[in-house]
Amino acid sequence: MSRKADRDQIRRQNRAIILQALRRQGPMARIDLGQITQLSPATVTAITSDLLDQGLIEGIEADEPKGPQGRGRPRSMLRLNPDAACVIAIRLSVNSIEMALANFTGETFFTKRAAFNSAAADAKSFPPILIAAIRSFLEDAKLSPDKVLEIGIAAQGVVETETGLVAWSPAFSGRKIPIVQPLSEAFHADCALSNDTNMITEALHWSDPDRYSGTFAVVMLDYGVGMGLYLDDHLFSGANGTAAEFGHANHIPGGALCRCGKRGCLEAYLSDYALVRAADGLPETTSPDGIAAGQSGLATLIDRAKAGESGALQAFHQAGTVLGYGLARIVALIDPKRIVLTGAAVRAFSFMEEGMKSGLEEALVADLRQNFEIDVLPWKEDYIRRGLIAQAMERLDRGHTGETAHGRPARGSYPKEGAPA
Amino acid sequence: MSRKADRDQIRRQNRAIILQALRRQGPMARIDLGQITQLSPATVTAITSDLLDQGLIEGIEADEPKGPQGRGRPRSMLRLNPDAACVIAIRLSVNSIEMALANFTGETFFTKRAAFNSAAADAKSFPPILIAAIRSFLEDAKLSPDKVLEIGIAAQGVVETETGLVAWSPAFSGRKIPIVQPLSEAFHADCALSNDTNMITEALHWSDPDRYSGTFAVVMLDYGVGMGLYLDDHLFSGANGTAAEFGHANHIPGGALCRCGKRGCLEAYLSDYALVRAADGLPETTSPDGIAAGQSGLATLIDRAKAGESGALQAFHQAGTVLGYGLARIVALIDPKRIVLTGAAVRAFSFMEEGMKSGLEEALVADLRQNFEIDVLPWKEDYIRRGLIAQAMERLDRGHTGETAHGRPARGSYPKEGAPA
Repeated sequence: MSRKADRDQIRRQNRAIILQALRRQGPMARIDLGQITQLSPATVTAITSDLLDQGLIEGIEADEPKGPQGRGRPRSMLRLNPDAACVIAIRLSVNSIEMALANFTGETFFTKRAAFNSAAADAKSFPPILIAAIRSFLEDAKLSPDKVLEIGIAAQGVVETETGLVAWSPAFSGRKIPIVQPLSEAFHADCALSNDTNMITEALHWSDPDRYSGTFAVVMLDYGVGMGLYLDDHLFSGANGTAAEFGHANHIPGGALCRCGKRGCLEAYLSDYALVRAADGLPETTSPDGIAAGQSGLATLIDRAKAGESGALQAFHQAGTVLGYGLARIVALIDPKRIVLTGAAVRAFSFMEEGMKSGLEEALVADLRQNFEIDVLPWKEDYIRRGLIAQAMERLDRGHTGETAHGRPARGSYPKEGAPA
Repeated sequence: MSRKADRDQIRRQNRAIILQALRRQGPMARIDLGQITQLSPATVTAITSDLLDQGLIEGIEADEPKGPQGRGRPRSMLRLNPDAACVIAIRLSVNSIEMALANFTGETFFTKRAAFNSAAADAKSFPPILIAAIRSFLEDAKLSPDKVLEIGIAAQGVVETETGLVAWSPAFSGRKIPIVQPLSEAFHADCALSNDTNMITEALHWSDPDRYSGTFAVVMLDYGVGMGLYLDDHLFSGANGTAAEFGHANHIPGGALCRCGKRGCLEAYLSDYALVRAADGLPETTSPDGIAAGQSGLATLIDRAKAGESGALQAFHQAGTVLGYGLARIVALIDPKRIVLTGAAVRAFSFMEEGMKSGLEEALVADLRQNFEIDVLPWKEDYIRRGLIAQAMERLDRGHTGETAHGRPARGSYPKEGAPA
């Protein structure tokens, strides 16, 4: 009985569709907006009139494309007001807080990276560090905290989207690090915490919805192993927000020692330390803590494989086979149309490919092996940021109605809850 | 742009909500219908008036519950018209076609089981056998095929919901058995093919939506191993309809020989033949075809365990451990709120429980082990039928508008596409 069709809900949905079309396609005339959104002219007129009134969009005159006679008539277009809202995208990783500010068009206009000490960061010490880093970031950007309506945070590891805690992550020595509550209180903004690979998944859908829609999975091979699941046309994060923990899905009972303390996790075969451990011929039970890996370790290992060193080649081949088994389990359980492989380690994909194919074939009955494709995507640092911004914009477009209890907001800005009127 | 809010879609959704409320709760007055569905009085009046007009519901006079004075005033109630539509639910399993007829209230009023020879059934021979069985069933029920609007079919194995084929199943010797197309053509009814465990999942949600909603998984331990996934409040079947193939997700590379021909599938440790093979001390590579198992084999094995026979006890304990590992992977990937264990083999759950707990603990980092519950449900034969009927009713309620291009249908029945007017 929860699916009650609600007039206000529909209005907000249509409003979000129009805002997203303008963000995706840029300025356009009302008639084109109607064609692209398939909304009726009356609906487009009513919604854009409200949006103009609220200062979220603005009318501009733009020249039409020139005809054969070389004349372009000026035409009335609509575009998003870039200053209507501002969001912060934050990526938390080992020793690093990466921050970006985006305007209402989704464009990033200011970025900064702050350092912190992961080895000493726990539930008590980290929130004040993060808040101070954001305050200093906003000062550098000369932006009042009042202007920030959404903060999106991505972290590696086991992230509880529902409670807003990072349950466990290589970025922190402590567990259950609260993120959403302290940030909401400090900045009176709407905050959302996500797994970093979920944000890559969101970014792929946003940048190429024709290719990345329906049901697909993203695997990030990097420092650690991440996964994002897009199921039946939406990002899936499970009952507690901890789904898609591919790295800590068991591969072999009693197998290689994982950073999480368990044995046989996929991460213990696929991540940077696992590859170095295997290439150097160390026992599977060697503690990950004692292995110098990380970005530079991985880069060195790739060079060793390129130079034809057998230990490195074998390590990548074994990792490929394990990856094939892992993907086979995903195919059996999720039945994705597409699996995307990305992350720093895909630079070594050519050394893993053969192993991956044999793993898939050994693990999966032929009937299930025919219906999916694998995309190997070169890693781009800004995927996560783009996903955070896309998600924050969607929350803005859907959540805020542009009206407060005291009436319409000041022209040119969203109302901010909790902020002085 | 595909989320265009559509007036007609909303009307159909509200209509479905009202029909479902009457099916779930039985006859009720308009005012109660409004309270339960949270729809406005005007909407309830408009929709029920249409439904009365189309003969899908009918008005009755029922006595109100008696007050302290012992007087019950007659009150005007609405109820579903049981004769408005008829659906067939069919379960295909080894050598067996189980059929049931249900009326528009969802009540089963006629059932029959027909035998066929699984060992000789392939893509060419099976469809005519199934059609003949259904025709004979309808003759016995004295029902014209014209009255059947929906046919729901559940089969064990790898079922492609999207193409309507059974890709691979122990119920057939052949592969890619077409089901939906031949039945649609023969009976001019709307047909849907599902994995059998998906239908158990649907039945659980239908019978207890408070407990079985959101994100949960169902594991059926029986002849073979089945799974159903309910994710973010709907049944999930993947891009091709073959998701939730838990039984053929690999447990150990190069492990026990599975009926599918691969090695190390979960089924090769958990199903009837796997348990008998382990209990009798046969090598893991012994072909499943040569092992006498099935329902009676499983029952005998449970008796042996109850009698304290160590081979049987060890087989169940090992199966429990493997189950724990398999569930741990589900938890890591799907993050369900609840996992339901059912099927004939849960009668032996007490012999598996300890192994299952140790498997879960070995395989899963503590942070992921705290957020789900396990329900062990005694197996009921009619779960699958109830799921098929619930799903067929939902398709009926949502799909048919009760109006044809030629105007309103005859009172008391849905219009049937493809049938003579």
